[in-house]
Amino acid sequence: MSVQSQNHRDAWFAPFFKELLASVKPVFGTTAATPFIFPGTGTGGWEAALSNTLSPGDRVVTFRYGMFSHLWIDMMQRLGLEVEVVEGRWGDGAYEDKLADLLEKDTSKGIKAVCVVHNETATGVTSDIGRIRETLDAASHPALLMVDGVSSVGALPFKFDDWRVDVAVTGSQKALSLPTGLGIVAASDKALDARSSAKLKRVYFSFDDMLKTNKNGGVPYTPILPLLHGLKASLGLLNAEGLDNVFARHHRLAEGTRAAVAAWGLKLLCREPRWQSDTLTVVEVPEGLDSQKIVDTAFAKYNLSLGLGLAEVQGKVFRIGHLGNMDELMLAGALGGVEMTLRDVGLPIELGSGVGAALKVWQEGTPVIPTRECLMA
Amino acid sequence: MSVQSQNHRDAWFAPFFKELLASVKPVFGTTAATPFIFPGTGTGGWEAALSNTLSPGDRVVTFRYGMFSHLWIDMMQRLGLEVEVVEGRWGDGAYEDKLADLLEKDTSKGIKAVCVVHNETATGVTSDIGRIRETLDAASHPALLMVDGVSSVGALPFKFDDWRVDVAVTGSQKALSLPTGLGIVAASDKALDARSSAKLKRVYFSFDDMLKTNKNGGVPYTPILPLLHGLKASLGLLNAEGLDNVFARHHRLAEGTRAAVAAWGLKLLCREPRWQSDTLTVVEVPEGLDSQKIVDTAFAKYNLSLGLGLAEVQGKVFRIGHLGNMDELMLAGALGGVEMTLRDVGLPIELGSGVGAALKVWQEGTPVIPTRECLMA
Amino acid sequence: MSVQSQNHRDAWFAPFFKELLASVKPVFGTTAATPFIFPGTGTGGWEAALSNTLSPGDRVVTFRYGMFSHLWIDMMQRLGLEVEVVEGRWGDGAYEDKLADLLEKDTSKGIKAVCVVHNETATGVTSDIGRIRETLDAASHPALLMVDGVSSVGALPFKFDDWRVDVAVTGSQKALSLPTGLGIVAASDKALDARSSAKLKRVYFSFDDMLKTNKNGGVPYTPILPLLHGLKASLGLLNAEGLDNVFARHHRLAEGTRAAVAAWGLKLLCREPRWQSDTLTVVEVPEGLDSQKIVDTAFAKYNLSLGLGLAEVQGKVFRIGHLGNMDELMLAGALGGVEMTLRDVGLPIELGSGVGAALKVWQEGTPVIPTRECLMA
Amino acid sequence: MSVQSQNHRDAWFAPFFKELLASVKPVFGTTAATPFIFPGTGTGGWEAALSNTLSPGDRVVTFRYGMFSHLWIDMMQRLGLEVEVVEGRWGDGAYEDKLADLLEKDTSKGIKAVCVVHNETATGVTSDIGRIRETLDAASHPALLMVDGVSSVGALPFKFDDWRVDVAVTGSQKALSLPTGLGIVAASDKALDARSSAKLKRVYFSFDDMLKTNKNGGVPYTPILPLLHGLKASLGLLNAEGLDNVFARHHRLAEGTRAAVAAWGLKLLCREPRWQSDTLTVVEVPEGLDSQKIVDTAFAKYNLSLGLGLAEVQGKVFRIGHLGNMDELMLAGALGGVEMTLRDVGLPIELGSGVGAALKVWQEGTPVIPTRECLMA
Repeated sequence: MSVQSQNHRDAWFAPFFKELLASVKPVFGTTAATPFIFPGTGTGGWEAALSNTLSPGDRVVTFRYGMFSHLWIDMMQRLGLEVEVVEGRWGDGAYEDKLADLLEKDTSKGIKAVCVVHNETATGVTSDIGRIRETLDAASHPALLMVDGVSSVGALPFKFDDWRVDVAVTGSQKALSLPTGLGIVAASDKALDARSSAKLKRVYFSFDDMLKTNKNGGVPYTPILPLLHGLKASLGLLNAEGLDNVFARHHRLAEGTRAAVAAWGLKLLCREPRWQSDTLTVVEVPEGLDSQKIVDTAFAKYNLSLGLGLAEVQGKVFRIGHLGNMDELMLAGALGGVEMTLRDVGLPIELGSGVGAALKVWQEGTPVIPTRECLMA
Repeated sequence: MSVQSQNHRDAWFAPFFKELLASVKPVFGTTAATPFIFPGTGTGGWEAALSNTLSPGDRVVTFRYGMFSHLWIDMMQRLGLEVEVVEGRWGDGAYEDKLADLLEKDTSKGIKAVCVVHNETATGVTSDIGRIRETLDAASHPALLMVDGVSSVGALPFKFDDWRVDVAVTGSQKALSLPTGLGIVAASDKALDARSSAKLKRVYFSFDDMLKTNKNGGVPYTPILPLLHGLKASLGLLNAEGLDNVFARHHRLAEGTRAAVAAWGLKLLCREPRWQSDTLTVVEVPEGLDSQKIVDTAFAKYNLSLGLGLAEVQGKVFRIGHLGNMDELMLAGALGGVEMTLRDVGLPIELGSGVGAALKVWQEGTPVIPTRECLMA
Repeated sequence: MSVQSQNHRDAWFAPFFKELLASVKPVFGTTAATPFIFPGTGTGGWEAALSNTLSPGDRVVTFRYGMFSHLWIDMMQRLGLEVEVVEGRWGDGAYEDKLADLLEKDTSKGIKAVCVVHNETATGVTSDIGRIRETLDAASHPALLMVDGVSSVGALPFKFDDWRVDVAVTGSQKALSLPTGLGIVAASDKALDARSSAKLKRVYFSFDDMLKTNKNGGVPYTPILPLLHGLKASLGLLNAEGLDNVFARHHRLAEGTRAAVAAWGLKLLCREPRWQSDTLTVVEVPEGLDSQKIVDTAFAKYNLSLGLGLAEVQGKVFRIGHLGNMDELMLAGALGGVEMTLRDVGLPIELGSGVGAALKVWQEGTPVIPTRECLMA
Repeated sequence: MSVQSQNHRDAWFAPFFKELLASVKPVFGTTAATPFIFPGTGTGGWEAALSNTLSPGDRVVTFRYGMFSHLWIDMMQRLGLEVEVVEGRWGDGAYEDKLADLLEKDTSKGIKAVCVVHNETATGVTSDIGRIRETLDAASHPALLMVDGVSSVGALPFKFDDWRVDVAVTGSQKALSLPTGLGIVAASDKALDARSSAKLKRVYFSFDDMLKTNKNGGVPYTPILPLLHGLKASLGLLNAEGLDNVFARHHRLAEGTRAAVAAWGLKLLCREPRWQSDTLTVVEVPEGLDSQKIVDTAFAKYNLSLGLGLAEVQGKVFRIGHLGNMDELMLAGALGGVEMTLRDVGLPIELGSGVGAALKVWQEGTPVIPTRECLMA
């Protein structure tokens, strides 16, 4: 309607959008990068990252250790890149030593980019981007460092500037607790410079069109206004809580969940503690049990949405999310639901054991809500 | 706005409102009664019940065993009724034997009404209206039976017709999971007949003005349209779940909560099992502990709203609600919050003990969601 | 739900509600009065005004000149007051000279209250409360001055303190552009003092219970939280626009509408310019035409809600509202709808004549929106 | 949150999404085509259309007669297509005769696709796709016919099957009255077959990934759930009104607007009646007047959003939208706002002249709302 609904061509939009772009930077841990907001998903963000910086035939190194790293590799291949895949166990993170080997052999510096999924939602693994950067530095290798931060940015510490990331990608639907619909990208100056030589075709996901219009607070095509307003509100909530508190809360929720899993006598798919994700926990089920049955029962009987095991770990794991707008009591309820479900499918779990273990972590670790400290005087 | 917002004087309203009035009746368990929907609260519903049927100086018998029965008594007295109060322990229900005594002594049938709060939200007590009716019948007493069903109608079985209730009162904000704002009343023909002799003044809460306008689908003054739409939706959800399933769910939630309390080694304020409420559980705290501290800590540390002890039981109890749009996992989370809070204030509770006890009840008793049975095949 | 929805017993409520009560005062034009917010309608506010200050048998003087003054009189009579009604033409306001006569004759000062409907929504008439006060003063009469400001407070200048009003009543659903559900009352100290002698029964609408709880930011029974939040937002919008600008906008909208009616060759029901309402315009239809047909056609063909003629003026008038959250273009559309409808029912109106007359008023009188003045540089 | 928000991996999604895909087809006027719903904008839909069917260096013929056709051409060129642009006057539609010439010369049938913007939002022009199809048929030319229906599908008759369109593209934010965020595409079997030879890179906008997952009700990456629910509701509203009634309403609104423009003595940018758009009207301003001033004044003084003149017609035209969820009275208000604005900037318009001309069209042509016919008996 011409009269009533908001129009992004009216005068309010430019200052609103400029401020929004600026306010995206802290969740990436950057002051130096250039942010982009695409109408699309994180998958679109991946395409933006690759197509604005690379050319068909360019060599890239990446790691496959889960569904999402697998899908990104598939995209790289279909875009015509020459992809060197370091295969990993599903449940491990990016192997720094194998990367070091590849970089060492690349005496001609032909590798144009190293691509890493920071937090693998299929396996509950958080790779160590800081050590990936150290590995590149140790080899004095100039490859671009591209990071999929879709399920980490805004929930886990992400240090774009410290790690000297070149392109990082996230979406609206994970830590930002919004619907899907925004592919949010941060790019270093080095990444922006790579546009001039990048021969991959790009229009919809082109940095150029964004840069040209964004600088005056405009956009190259109609934006998703409700999501932009939602993004502003969501970033406002993160800031009100304090990013460090947000990270601490995710860590606390994850510690409780891991304590519950241990109390149940089950194993995490991610064996290596340094890689265990604070945004979701992926649990192996005992031999002979199909995890699909757990997911179905939880949904059918307790209205609880657990994550399925995907692809290679199908049937073997289930996933408990603790990302975004979640607190201890919601997660305690979910863990209670898991516990009942595990008994329903025949595991001899003692009811209360896992929840109790989590509560122990939380009773000790949960701070008083700052605005309510007066009640505790 | 004349153009866009809905107007209750337009043609859509009459059929909508007639259907809404009809759809209110099943939650009261009646086909015979006349329903009324007042813009106001349950307190307003009380005033409607009394002022449309009684005259100043009329004798009424009622029971005081909690904050809400106390407040209704206060209203009766201020309206000029002669109120015979049967005092009870806070934590007990309506004493049928004491009522029998009073009725027996009333050979002149001077008692005009017996008023009972069905579910005392201050104490977690559900009185037995069926036995109150039997007591009246045994005495062949013609007094009107008025029931406050504010926190029971729509959550607990309420049998207006079977119990031959004369006026029952509820509100939108409890079992119907809506905001406050509707006082919903059901009246028997006998109650309607009492209008002609009732001398209490009434205008806003008059049955007459409602009857005159309601019969054509109208209302005597502007209705709260969003709440009427909400009521339609809320009744639709109750019907979709099935009233019997709703009652069973509340019973199951309460059984789990009571199991948790027992596991903590604490006591219910309501000692008599037949009176224990299925919509909230009121827990006594050990001597020397102020329950305000529990309520404050739960809110400050875990964002959990527990109910305070009110009036006579101030400081001595806290209240756990499990009414309305709630399921096992939400309540498990809340019980987990209680458990942590109890430790926070110094009680040697084993974490997981209460939640585990509740989970045991629920794992066994929770049925598969009917629309999801295919997942369990 | 105990965990998630807001609870008015939690710590946030008291400061919120105290501030809300304070922020109600400017729309009444008072710094001295005590505000009350009842869950109910304006009709409930009327009952609060009368029952807290008067006793059965008390003499009150009031005026009947429309449906709403008529309904208030009905309430007064049913509450047992001795009501002296000054009958007026529907379309006139409160006759100050007739009031002067009555006051002069009342040498014993037996008249306890003078009650006036400020803005009669049935007839489009705004009585002159300032002159009513002057009339009382000229007679040195101590009667309480009670004013129904349901459809005026927040849209028309209301000067509680200047006019020395004793009780003023409004609702959430008119100038405040909210749903029905709040009866908002302001009372002078003199009105509060009258409680001690007032013998009318009151519980739900009692000032005492409110005063006792409000002073600490509490309420005597569950409040309608969404409407309280809405009230805060609505008062915020009025303040952002500026109350004087709000009044000016309503006057401008009314002037345009009256110009349209004149251009159509029709007459206002309100003949006396000083009484013509700025919140709605009531138009007489020519002899032989039933205004119901106009209302039905506008709704059936153009989705336009016009007001019916009520009671004495049924069939003879239709009503065009321009109250609350409305601007020139919405009203121009509505006037266009009236114009088409008038032709549809057979009146030889020239299409565009009325809208054009209104546009003339608005093109000259509408100021630039302050936040957009930069666009006009 | 794992517990509460909807998850597209749960069992409800597949039947919901399959039904949604099916229900998209009628607005395109097709039973045979395959629909796709991409998270993105109409611009993304363009990219999907081209990249799934064509190869770098392929010859395409298209027309430039406005901003949106210009932008699509820009995309074609940047994707590496060899684009033959038929330049047109901004305000004209696609020239069928020039297309005929090109096709005739193309004896080798080297032209792979003809691309047409159906409704040019920059100029208020609707090209005649039926005659484009006839032109192709007359030349027996096998080129794919691709149509941008972003601002037409769902508002103007679109006959995918009759016109034998190969790919049509629309978005959620125009006729569907939703926020931006869905690029909706329909493809013929011939277009789907073209995938096997199409060498343009595509991942995010690939038909293959959609086809593979959609057939089981899945999606290749996280969908924008709120927009999918919105799409269902929006299509439901279109169906409730009836697509033919929707088209008739847009035509009626446009006829009224054109009558207003004529009454003001102004000219449409689109001179040729057969091309005049029913979804927006673009008006030329007299020499010496900058249309920016009109747009700014309308927004600053009347809160009315008019469209700017874009690119080649910057400063020379303003645009009045009448697309989507709009009715006669809203548009009458907007026309009133234009009229006042035109006087504000110095044009000697008679106030009421344009609105009156529009009202004439609408009073005669507007049918009674079917559900309200009883009111007209």
